[in-house]
Amino acid sequence: MITRKIVFVVFALISNYLFSQDKRARDYGIEIGILKPGKLNAITDVKGVKVGHTTIIKGDRIRTGVTAILPHSGNIFQLKVPAAIYLGNGFGKLAGYSQVKELGNIETPIILTNTLSVPEASNALITYTLQQKGNEDIHSVNSIVGETNDGWLNDIRGRHVKEKHVLDAIQNAKSGAIKEGNVGAGTGTVCFQYKGGIGTSSRIIPEKFGAYTVGVLVQTNYGGVLQINGVPIGKELDNYPRNYKYDVDGSCMIVVMTDAPLSSRNLERLAKRGMMGLARTGGIASNSSGDYVIAVSTAKDNFIPHHKNSPLIATKELENGAMTPLFLAVIEATEEAIINSLFAAKTMTGRKNHERKSIPINDIIKIMKKYNRIHPTN
Amino acid sequence: MITRKIVFVVFALISNYLFSQDKRARDYGIEIGILKPGKLNAITDVKGVKVGHTTIIKGDRIRTGVTAILPHSGNIFQLKVPAAIYLGNGFGKLAGYSQVKELGNIETPIILTNTLSVPEASNALITYTLQQKGNEDIHSVNSIVGETNDGWLNDIRGRHVKEKHVLDAIQNAKSGAIKEGNVGAGTGTVCFQYKGGIGTSSRIIPEKFGAYTVGVLVQTNYGGVLQINGVPIGKELDNYPRNYKYDVDGSCMIVVMTDAPLSSRNLERLAKRGMMGLARTGGIASNSSGDYVIAVSTAKDNFIPHHKNSPLIATKELENGAMTPLFLAVIEATEEAIINSLFAAKTMTGRKNHERKSIPINDIIKIMKKYNRIHPTN
Amino acid sequence: MITRKIVFVVFALISNYLFSQDKRARDYGIEIGILKPGKLNAITDVKGVKVGHTTIIKGDRIRTGVTAILPHSGNIFQLKVPAAIYLGNGFGKLAGYSQVKELGNIETPIILTNTLSVPEASNALITYTLQQKGNEDIHSVNSIVGETNDGWLNDIRGRHVKEKHVLDAIQNAKSGAIKEGNVGAGTGTVCFQYKGGIGTSSRIIPEKFGAYTVGVLVQTNYGGVLQINGVPIGKELDNYPRNYKYDVDGSCMIVVMTDAPLSSRNLERLAKRGMMGLARTGGIASNSSGDYVIAVSTAKDNFIPHHKNSPLIATKELENGAMTPLFLAVIEATEEAIINSLFAAKTMTGRKNHERKSIPINDIIKIMKKYNRIHPTN
Amino acid sequence: MITRKIVFVVFALISNYLFSQDKRARDYGIEIGILKPGKLNAITDVKGVKVGHTTIIKGDRIRTGVTAILPHSGNIFQLKVPAAIYLGNGFGKLAGYSQVKELGNIETPIILTNTLSVPEASNALITYTLQQKGNEDIHSVNSIVGETNDGWLNDIRGRHVKEKHVLDAIQNAKSGAIKEGNVGAGTGTVCFQYKGGIGTSSRIIPEKFGAYTVGVLVQTNYGGVLQINGVPIGKELDNYPRNYKYDVDGSCMIVVMTDAPLSSRNLERLAKRGMMGLARTGGIASNSSGDYVIAVSTAKDNFIPHHKNSPLIATKELENGAMTPLFLAVIEATEEAIINSLFAAKTMTGRKNHERKSIPINDIIKIMKKYNRIHPTN
Repeated sequence: MITRKIVFVVFALISNYLFSQDKRARDYGIEIGILKPGKLNAITDVKGVKVGHTTIIKGDRIRTGVTAILPHSGNIFQLKVPAAIYLGNGFGKLAGYSQVKELGNIETPIILTNTLSVPEASNALITYTLQQKGNEDIHSVNSIVGETNDGWLNDIRGRHVKEKHVLDAIQNAKSGAIKEGNVGAGTGTVCFQYKGGIGTSSRIIPEKFGAYTVGVLVQTNYGGVLQINGVPIGKELDNYPRNYKYDVDGSCMIVVMTDAPLSSRNLERLAKRGMMGLARTGGIASNSSGDYVIAVSTAKDNFIPHHKNSPLIATKELENGAMTPLFLAVIEATEEAIINSLFAAKTMTGRKNHERKSIPINDIIKIMKKYNRIHPTN
Repeated sequence: MITRKIVFVVFALISNYLFSQDKRARDYGIEIGILKPGKLNAITDVKGVKVGHTTIIKGDRIRTGVTAILPHSGNIFQLKVPAAIYLGNGFGKLAGYSQVKELGNIETPIILTNTLSVPEASNALITYTLQQKGNEDIHSVNSIVGETNDGWLNDIRGRHVKEKHVLDAIQNAKSGAIKEGNVGAGTGTVCFQYKGGIGTSSRIIPEKFGAYTVGVLVQTNYGGVLQINGVPIGKELDNYPRNYKYDVDGSCMIVVMTDAPLSSRNLERLAKRGMMGLARTGGIASNSSGDYVIAVSTAKDNFIPHHKNSPLIATKELENGAMTPLFLAVIEATEEAIINSLFAAKTMTGRKNHERKSIPINDIIKIMKKYNRIHPTN
Repeated sequence: MITRKIVFVVFALISNYLFSQDKRARDYGIEIGILKPGKLNAITDVKGVKVGHTTIIKGDRIRTGVTAILPHSGNIFQLKVPAAIYLGNGFGKLAGYSQVKELGNIETPIILTNTLSVPEASNALITYTLQQKGNEDIHSVNSIVGETNDGWLNDIRGRHVKEKHVLDAIQNAKSGAIKEGNVGAGTGTVCFQYKGGIGTSSRIIPEKFGAYTVGVLVQTNYGGVLQINGVPIGKELDNYPRNYKYDVDGSCMIVVMTDAPLSSRNLERLAKRGMMGLARTGGIASNSSGDYVIAVSTAKDNFIPHHKNSPLIATKELENGAMTPLFLAVIEATEEAIINSLFAAKTMTGRKNHERKSIPINDIIKIMKKYNRIHPTN
Repeated sequence: MITRKIVFVVFALISNYLFSQDKRARDYGIEIGILKPGKLNAITDVKGVKVGHTTIIKGDRIRTGVTAILPHSGNIFQLKVPAAIYLGNGFGKLAGYSQVKELGNIETPIILTNTLSVPEASNALITYTLQQKGNEDIHSVNSIVGETNDGWLNDIRGRHVKEKHVLDAIQNAKSGAIKEGNVGAGTGTVCFQYKGGIGTSSRIIPEKFGAYTVGVLVQTNYGGVLQINGVPIGKELDNYPRNYKYDVDGSCMIVVMTDAPLSSRNLERLAKRGMMGLARTGGIASNSSGDYVIAVSTAKDNFIPHHKNSPLIATKELENGAMTPLFLAVIEATEEAIINSLFAAKTMTGRKNHERKSIPINDIIKIMKKYNRIHPTN
């Protein structure tokens, strides 16, 4: 037992040495915003939230996957969860928008995947829901599936995501630390011309505002002129504007979870702030972006049973005036989640020998230091 | 010239015999509105529009299908079509909303099917698009799929619609008269407690307003207190209000095509009027309705090539002030299309021996006569 | 107890004599819909709601006015009320939309007036609010003002509505029966080419759905092809379609009050149904219509104090599934309120000797009888 | 020709001296973004656009004003201009939203002023429009008025803005350099706890994307954690987060003009990017913000005559795919306009002896240098 532990520690050290990029942005001394992150600095800091990944890497041309985010561990169809979706830029194929807009809640896990696999994932959520105990008579399911387009590295036309992959991601979902970078729905994505992927972060609201937690998970696949904590990385690295190309295709999915008890109207307002966090990284929501923010309130008392005992539902919700700290939290956590996705992603080669390099962390740290935005000790 | 006309008339008569051996509402002397219908009183009066059905009836429990509506016969992805979608009541699973909202156009045929088969149909549209000549490099497809829930007559949980059925409906799509009632996506639907289905109608705008055609196709599956041309059929037949139940589940998909050249903004305004047509039948857009109106402008000159020669596109569009006659046309054609769906639908028995009777046409005609709304000769 | 009841009945009879000496549609045997109206068949059936009119008729060219609707009798700024506004067709000048959309409540009375007097009325609401006791430190007021354009009969360019008229309407607001027709904001309006005006109606939801009251007040100033309870009055009277003109300018303001406890999201859904009621009268929401529906929930427990004791607010709200009967109630009450406005309005001559005749009630009753929609005894 | 050019240059230099004797952010070496500003780095770089201010400073408690922005110098009612308004956060009193949403154009100058003076300004726009030659028969005017709340420095309850002030601002509107800071509608505003005001900036799109100009004018009155070009000024100056208060009231009005020919749909997308520019300054769109972005396309050929010769209007518009560089331009110009408002605003004392200091430019330059974001020569 002890031996095993020692081996593990040694292995971890070596890993750390070999892959120093495993450090997250904050580990390098990059502190985004003024609010404190939660313990894991992850969406799973929001109690009850679980995340699962299925990473699909096969041969030299399949680089894709699935990420599942669960607001609670129960039967979500039977215990629906207040939610809203904001269309940052709607050039995307997200499934489930209109029902959430109308009814203010979600009734399935949230699935992220690639653009052309939305129907397969949507179908898998139906399978998942129909099969759950207690759902034997259900005839209608509003699948929530977001996507970005990993078609540069991945053989997206092959539609390699299968129902099984989606069900696996849900099955494997767990609380605790989350893998970032080239995993799940982020396996083949590209961000600011570098390898993008999954990233996450969280913020805790000050005690006097309720000490609520806001967690964000992103699937980054977009362009612009990269800024890290306000430092003009893009300009420095790419010699902008001389070489700047405006064909910054791609998209960003942003999932926000909070234990603050919020109405669907205030969740939509919260969701809007996700795009402000994206803006602070240099994102511009280009024409061809599918930028969506899904915001969910996990406050248990406001869950909505499918079968009501009474037409009157009692809720406790934060009043409008209490939203401001939560807005700030979403902005900061989105910004950091995006940066985390870049720090975690590794260079990847895919279809047609296309390659996307990971961000050059050493160079970036140098630039951050040049701009005095990192403690010299880092 | 004369010969050609005769051939056409003969063909029309044969069509009429083959496809419409049943009398439509107008054949009974029920004249809805003040505008004239087109030649076929169908969505296919809009030049270039094609409709195809796949009807899936198997054993005693499969009662479902697919209806495809094509705005033109070319490669729709390569030659996109101005469009808008209005969420009348968004408790539904329509695929494709956000991209249409953002970009103002559609790039696939419109598919209607049942609620739980939206992903399969969406996937089929991807298959269809990826396989078309000229689309070899396409990595993104915004499938447009609407639905209503035929789960009372159909084993909807079995998800019996397959890719093949969708591709068949597209393949079979043609101009000319359209089958109504228990066909395609209307095979298993229920409307005002009677058998619903597919219905269609059209209107021609007066010459001085441009002589444009507006065509509507509906998939009726909703409730309320039925009115036919303003006559309180529901009250008479069902002895309302004594027996009226408010659990009027269900939905209505409304597809509007017009050859009037319209911007996506004005198409959204046009789409909104679809719900006003539904209102005139006694529909109330109940809580659980998924009521969506998809409006498409088939004016060729405004089609949007996927690959542009220039960033500047020249369009000719109707100005805001010219919309009013088109609004009236949508209202009238929607109202009549819904009534047509009821007149065409036949009694059907399905899963669990559930039965939905066709509307009792004889009784209805009597009521219409009682209210002096039908010529006594009918 | 008995005495009190008798006094009330006597008072109601006298009220009825004084205010409603003219027969309303229902008095002629025109029964719209299947739900029962409240005692007064007026928006004031919703407990706590008050309505006040200022009618401004001067010389031969001033024909305008103001109508005020108060959701409760307290300080509305200090005790805000859940609300939503639906843009049926937004060619209008309504003040206050965006804040209601964002925050889900109103903080002033609702004022209706003419198009060019919206700023004056808006200013008057600010004056009213700033002057109220307890509002000494208020620096921001979201005035809610709707309008239609009475410029055919009224010298609208003269902007004859003054602050005093608005404050008077608020001051005079009372519960009980409401004057309809050529009063307040309906003084100079035109509807279906006849004299329009103010109309009101209400519906009671069946006991088992909560016995809630829905009240509607309309300011009618729009066109289309008039239907009364589904009977084609417009076709009969105007010899449509031969003479039908499509330049049906004008607008309709629809105010919905209910004591049902509703979230702002469900109020927006409720508001949408107002347009379905309008559709049933033959309205088409023409291009130049400013059609707005303001829906307000007067359930006391959900009022929102300006100064909160806690950021958490406890509410009891109807769940989505309980909305359907309320939707039907709004549709029916809107339809009947519009018809009531026409029955109450009297022929009026205004600027430039323009004249709008009242609807020809005798002819209409004859038509209603021809179509067997009225008891022969009426 | 040469003479004319010389005169222009001399005039520009004099203008520069008179109006911009204070250094703007860019003069200090703060270069925001990668695109080049226009000649004046102002909204007036968009050809035809004029701006006028009325500054109202009286006694010790009146600190307010009016700013007018004109898209062209003609009769705007008779020659309407494509436009869209985006509700960043709708806690504000902007007038004119719904008609712009419905019809896609504006028909008056855009006026900015204080919150409680919106009705007076709206009324003034009606007066202005009714009085213009050619508008003798106009009965309807959709005033566009934005606002922020200057009630901390200004006696806002006194409503000191009068019609005359608004008409003066329109009358005085001119092309050329624009006064920034404590002028017009920015006279009494507060931003990031410092004195805010009016700011402006512009960007030119690269030649190969059409060389279009995008100009932005802002009225800054909001809070957050100030960043200048990504440098954490707020944190440094205010010792955040220890002292950070979340009651960051206030609002930001953002007006975008461009000569790019855009549909109202694409103008709405453009408007959305204004909020991304605001985000990059540390703005968070707090609960009580009224953040609105008005975007207008001044491409002459797409102006919309009030009286049309034909119901068909021919337009040339940029296709969706050409929007990306314009999006970037709006983000950059908004960010810089906001920073410019702060650099130009001077310390002001107002009602109740309230004072707002100008940003401490020397300290800020030091911080910018500490972070190596300014050339040491500045």
